[in-house]
Amino acid sequence: MINYKIIFRVLGFLLLIEGFFLLVSFGVSLLYNENDKLPLMFSAALTLIIGGLSHYFTRDVSKNLNKREGYIIVSLVWVVFSLFGALPFYIGGAIPSYTDAFFETISGFTTTGASILNNIEEIPHGLLFWRSITQWLGGMGMIVMSLAILPLLGIGGMQLYVAEVPGPTKDKLHPRVRETAKRLWGIYIVFTGAQTVLLLFGGMNLFDAINHSLTTMATGGYSTKQASVAFYDSAYIQYVITFFMFVAGTNFTLAYFAFKGKFGKVFGNEEFRYYFGFVVAFTLIIAVGLALNNNEPLEKSFRDSLFQVVSMMTTTGFATVDYLNWTPFLVVLIFGVMFFGGSAGSTGGGIKIVRIVLLLKNSLLEFKRLIHPNAVIPVRLNHKAVKPSIVTNVLAFIVFYILIFVVGTVLMSAMGLELDSAMGSVIATLGNIGPGIGSVGPSSNFAHIPTMGKWLLSFFMLVGRLELFTVLVLFTPAFWKK
Amino acid sequence: MINYKIIFRVLGFLLLIEGFFLLVSFGVSLLYNENDKLPLMFSAALTLIIGGLSHYFTRDVSKNLNKREGYIIVSLVWVVFSLFGALPFYIGGAIPSYTDAFFETISGFTTTGASILNNIEEIPHGLLFWRSITQWLGGMGMIVMSLAILPLLGIGGMQLYVAEVPGPTKDKLHPRVRETAKRLWGIYIVFTGAQTVLLLFGGMNLFDAINHSLTTMATGGYSTKQASVAFYDSAYIQYVITFFMFVAGTNFTLAYFAFKGKFGKVFGNEEFRYYFGFVVAFTLIIAVGLALNNNEPLEKSFRDSLFQVVSMMTTTGFATVDYLNWTPFLVVLIFGVMFFGGSAGSTGGGIKIVRIVLLLKNSLLEFKRLIHPNAVIPVRLNHKAVKPSIVTNVLAFIVFYILIFVVGTVLMSAMGLELDSAMGSVIATLGNIGPGIGSVGPSSNFAHIPTMGKWLLSFFMLVGRLELFTVLVLFTPAFWKK
Repeated sequence: MINYKIIFRVLGFLLLIEGFFLLVSFGVSLLYNENDKLPLMFSAALTLIIGGLSHYFTRDVSKNLNKREGYIIVSLVWVVFSLFGALPFYIGGAIPSYTDAFFETISGFTTTGASILNNIEEIPHGLLFWRSITQWLGGMGMIVMSLAILPLLGIGGMQLYVAEVPGPTKDKLHPRVRETAKRLWGIYIVFTGAQTVLLLFGGMNLFDAINHSLTTMATGGYSTKQASVAFYDSAYIQYVITFFMFVAGTNFTLAYFAFKGKFGKVFGNEEFRYYFGFVVAFTLIIAVGLALNNNEPLEKSFRDSLFQVVSMMTTTGFATVDYLNWTPFLVVLIFGVMFFGGSAGSTGGGIKIVRIVLLLKNSLLEFKRLIHPNAVIPVRLNHKAVKPSIVTNVLAFIVFYILIFVVGTVLMSAMGLELDSAMGSVIATLGNIGPGIGSVGPSSNFAHIPTMGKWLLSFFMLVGRLELFTVLVLFTPAFWKK
Repeated sequence: MINYKIIFRVLGFLLLIEGFFLLVSFGVSLLYNENDKLPLMFSAALTLIIGGLSHYFTRDVSKNLNKREGYIIVSLVWVVFSLFGALPFYIGGAIPSYTDAFFETISGFTTTGASILNNIEEIPHGLLFWRSITQWLGGMGMIVMSLAILPLLGIGGMQLYVAEVPGPTKDKLHPRVRETAKRLWGIYIVFTGAQTVLLLFGGMNLFDAINHSLTTMATGGYSTKQASVAFYDSAYIQYVITFFMFVAGTNFTLAYFAFKGKFGKVFGNEEFRYYFGFVVAFTLIIAVGLALNNNEPLEKSFRDSLFQVVSMMTTTGFATVDYLNWTPFLVVLIFGVMFFGGSAGSTGGGIKIVRIVLLLKNSLLEFKRLIHPNAVIPVRLNHKAVKPSIVTNVLAFIVFYILIFVVGTVLMSAMGLELDSAMGSVIATLGNIGPGIGSVGPSSNFAHIPTMGKWLLSFFMLVGRLELFTVLVLFTPAFWKK
């Protein structure tokens, strides 16, 4: 029996949090005194009232959450947040279609950053701030969930990393959910603040600095400028953002160690070393490719390459150039980078580095197993054997990821998109990246996608954000049985 | 210690067989009395002499083959056959570049059917016949190897099917390699003959009928016409070829049962039912899509769809239309079909239906496993549980297939191909199909690929034909150790 009351109670409580941040955005709109005051106030009020009522009238529930209720809440919260979060955009007419408003909002909460806006500079400040806040909340929400809540639900993949953080137990993040969440929020806020200061230092105005920091740390990629980071023709600003995108794509447990000065632990971690290595390798190849094909200073080629590689690998989605104008080889490489994703336990989406690494290691071992069919040859990570059930789960994850990518591409092409645009729109949303290839590249956006396509892509954002199984299991009969 | 003498002895013997078929082609050139007489005669002589010497001077070897020598021979024979088989094209100047001649020949032996010829109608009959024979030999060679030899080497995947053929033991093909091979050759020849007669009956001339039958049964797809089967504006001929392509994509053990009238066994086989189901499903969707977008009779839309789906799924590669002119959705679907492949134990290439089915079944079971983490839930095929090691092998195979596809796409794009052409050229060769998408579609060919790209694609043909591991294991240090 599923206890729907407790689901309402938890969702109600979370809606109060969303309402609070809508109130803050309302405060921003008061500051700038623009026409988004009423829509934000009304949305905040509605969200707080419904959240409050839902929480209050279910207060007699005392039962603990069971696993199935956990799954339902974890999936539903993103949908409910987006349904309410879309209101301020829709009510005032800033985004006249509710489909578009929902798309923009779930794209925010899932830290995807795929936008339907053609006129970002015309959107009032309160709404822009709310748009950035959706990403910031979504980014941290995912971290907390993935490091603290999902392992409790027994969802594979994510807990892998936690189990594999090197060093004695006392160095691990505090196992209690509450403590863990607090510390993670602490680091998250400190990094966001630090980036804001550094961007201000580079001449960005306060509003833009705060917004870009919020969406960088979330690996979201919403910008307050239509041209994204390309608007800022400053090497300093671009390097600062690159650095913080890279940090945001790092496992936050490691970020915590780095924060405490334990860099040995950071570089001792295998996923981090691969993450670092992939970034360096792709950056160098693309930088050389760019340098051979343009007449710009080497530094510019390097910076463009580094920025785009980090932006795509961490699934942030900021752009300083339109990579679709590069030579086919470089476009294919960037398209390939979109399949990586950040580290497990980071705000990044995608397949995640640790899964790619396990996949590659296991594949190479298949040969050894072919030659020595009777030997048991385990995959090793951080010098420890990985349990076979985790390897199977990782393989199943990647297979499913590719299946969804393929089926999604077919469905999007059924809506009239060309192959490259269909593939691009699916990976950009499933991987929580933002811009893709084809007609959804960094110089264009998702406004032209048909309505049905926007809902489908919204679904992919959710599926990608929650690591596939969490959402998809809800659609299996076995889940609802008994 | 690898016994190189026995490798030379076996390869020498096989070269004698190749030389014999070169002699037959020389006979055809005598019949037509064209300028390919000398090249064919010289090539036949050289092949027979070298094969004979290699076989003769190693006659003192009495040792049995071990597994490693088996791997080396199975991989090398396709390369050696192609090196010699390319001679008649090259010597007479019919194909002036040896790279192109080798590409055309290995594309034949691997039953890929990717061509570099812009002037098929100008090639003399003896050479065209030899070109078709390469496919016919390659197709049967693979069947015999996959059903009789590869299982002895312990190469996974293929033996799966054999083990799973339903019914009591006495109904299985005779377990002894020699007997099995004989029966398979028998069916193969009978089917090839039957198709020839039926094509003659439809008005095709004898030479073309023989050639198209040779390359249909091999799921090769080399045509004696530049326009491929589109040259024959006859519904009858196209349906006949469709039927035999479908047969060629069926497991030959089942074909043997069908041949003996045991149709119950055929439809009782799960892989066959899925194979049939996939063909029906894709044909209907594409036929409807075509009918909605053109003004042709329904029968034409159905026939075009059926022909292309069967041609691509069985990896034959014949074309009656240029599917690249279809709407994006249909192009994406056909592109998707290229990843299926025929049944295990057929002449078809690709991933193979049984692997796709196991992948899908296992993926769906992951959800059940998520909900019941402690239950052991095996994948079932033909009502029997499949061993976990086979499931792991299938997953590893598909992961590797996709990895090679991705790396191949990157490499081909590095040679200047656009994304769609890069993807198309890799899947067309890795899947042993022939035509792909982009600049290597059915209306174009592989002549414009850079030299390095042709060698790389040749390698992919071999890797795909030998089911990845057989070839790739040779490149691992572990294989050569001790």
